[in-house]
Amino acid sequence: MRIVSLAGGIGGARFLRGLLTTAPDSEITVIGNTGDDISLFGLRVCPDLDTVMYTLGGGINEEQGWGRREESHVVKEELAAYGVEPQWFGLGDRDFATHIVRTQMLDAGYPLSAVTEALCARWQPGVRLIPMSDDRTETHVVISDERGRRAVHFQEWWVRLRASVPAEQIILVGADQAVPAPGVLEAVAAADVVLLPPSNPVVSIGTILQIKGIREALEGKTVVGVSPIVGGAPVRGMADACLTAIGVPTTAQAVLELYGPALVDGWLVAEEDAGVALDGVEVEARPLIMHDLDSAAALARAALDMAVRLASPVTSTPSPTDTPATDTPRTDVSPGEGA
Amino acid sequence: MRIVSLAGGIGGARFLRGLLTTAPDSEITVIGNTGDDISLFGLRVCPDLDTVMYTLGGGINEEQGWGRREESHVVKEELAAYGVEPQWFGLGDRDFATHIVRTQMLDAGYPLSAVTEALCARWQPGVRLIPMSDDRTETHVVISDERGRRAVHFQEWWVRLRASVPAEQIILVGADQAVPAPGVLEAVAAADVVLLPPSNPVVSIGTILQIKGIREALEGKTVVGVSPIVGGAPVRGMADACLTAIGVPTTAQAVLELYGPALVDGWLVAEEDAGVALDGVEVEARPLIMHDLDSAAALARAALDMAVRLASPVTSTPSPTDTPATDTPRTDVSPGEGA
Repeated sequence: MRIVSLAGGIGGARFLRGLLTTAPDSEITVIGNTGDDISLFGLRVCPDLDTVMYTLGGGINEEQGWGRREESHVVKEELAAYGVEPQWFGLGDRDFATHIVRTQMLDAGYPLSAVTEALCARWQPGVRLIPMSDDRTETHVVISDERGRRAVHFQEWWVRLRASVPAEQIILVGADQAVPAPGVLEAVAAADVVLLPPSNPVVSIGTILQIKGIREALEGKTVVGVSPIVGGAPVRGMADACLTAIGVPTTAQAVLELYGPALVDGWLVAEEDAGVALDGVEVEARPLIMHDLDSAAALARAALDMAVRLASPVTSTPSPTDTPATDTPRTDVSPGEGA
Repeated sequence: MRIVSLAGGIGGARFLRGLLTTAPDSEITVIGNTGDDISLFGLRVCPDLDTVMYTLGGGINEEQGWGRREESHVVKEELAAYGVEPQWFGLGDRDFATHIVRTQMLDAGYPLSAVTEALCARWQPGVRLIPMSDDRTETHVVISDERGRRAVHFQEWWVRLRASVPAEQIILVGADQAVPAPGVLEAVAAADVVLLPPSNPVVSIGTILQIKGIREALEGKTVVGVSPIVGGAPVRGMADACLTAIGVPTTAQAVLELYGPALVDGWLVAEEDAGVALDGVEVEARPLIMHDLDSAAALARAALDMAVRLASPVTSTPSPTDTPATDTPRTDVSPGEGA
């Protein structure tokens, strides 16, 4: 079974760990978001790629969900003693080493995809992790504060401002030039199914979908997504602030509509969101909260089973052409578009 | 009193700390050796500048004489876990921050002298520390081993090989192009006296003297040097291996001759080397070992007093033109060339 998954940070990484547990023999390719990458102290930091790599490789700080376990912060303290900015981004000493290796390789001319592969040679994440693009893109957020209307790096808005200032616009700088990294479109083409974990629909999944050709490639596949919104609130993070910025309500329904039936064939929502429905998309209600590895594995299994069923050309459910999904009241049996 | 001192690493730094203690109101400019600078993991490391800065700024690891006190080595361990080379150079976490700040500033276009000044803004070393040159020079050592005859970076020979393989040649790569950093020649011109601490005469002091114009500028000043060799052995480090490479015996006499009377006006040797003498150079025997701050201050005071005396146009000792130094048996009263 060949599975492609898009992924942002914590939610994506935990979903993937569940997927690896429940489908250990699958060949999983993860297309990682690099829109929130940032250069700090001359070092290239790729938060989402690293969260996936550390989580699947056993190096993650489980409590905070990002960064390394058994971490120290000596380098950061010293940089602060030199008065170097920014001081609001929490890089640990172990994490610094990753950024040092990455930056050295990038400076030597290796593309980010090759660098990521090299870093993964240590971590052995059990998946093939590919950045969405080797081209540099950066998510910037337009805000207005006492300094006027201006664009800040996504991390400044997210980490320093804690998304407390409304995002007026979210822009992926470089998106018009960026092309998918080598292997991305090939992996999608070869995939039996595609899964969208409950990553941020705007600045994680939405970012990946902006890279030329990726959305189009996915639209030809069987795609099952997991709602990042439960009962009108993000499961974690501040996805609501991102959704508001693009005029989308913070509901499982609205995120599904954002992705749309051209992209998504199946959609998993929480039990309290069981009423969600969209033409051409099969919706199932499942426990979405990943408390632990078992619940993450169960969620991944539900998404994978649904995708496999939708991808199968012969099913016991009515054919989409016979029974339009619009009229069915039972979301757990509404047929998807198929592959 | 305006004092200029050249400096390598540990010996120079400890001498300077003594000098600051004994002459706190002096205006001291230190010209630091950058020949043993090295790029590691994409970061620019300046061991001698940092040893001076940390020692005078109170951040040095007193036991080892270099690196930071209360140091940890998490980043280095992590780099090793990634399999990144070299693993033989002992960078600590606190030290890494210095190299990160330096590299970021260099990459932004600041010359090393400006970077050093910025780093010193934190450390407040009490001296003006200027690298010998903003141009990149690197000391390479020609060795022959099982891999054949080849040049290695000085640090590889010094740290990895512990100078155990004979140095056939020691070359300052870039010396023919390098010019003194801004302020170097001006400081020498304005100096009342110049002191040469017991730094390595080949790869520290000797390196600085290779930068175009520095030796010539010093030859016009009153210069007092402290022998780095006591009783036929280096006080610390492996200066003997460097001296052998350039065909100079490891004696206080030979190092004095290496510097020569055109450069040095006064020379401090250890009591067991009291017989050292050279035409045109006044030699004094003093305790040279810097056990602690008091002994370092006493040594610096001896060098400074001698330099001040030699620089003074009116002295109670016979004029150099009246009594050639060659014939005087008492090394502690032999007149120097004066300023």
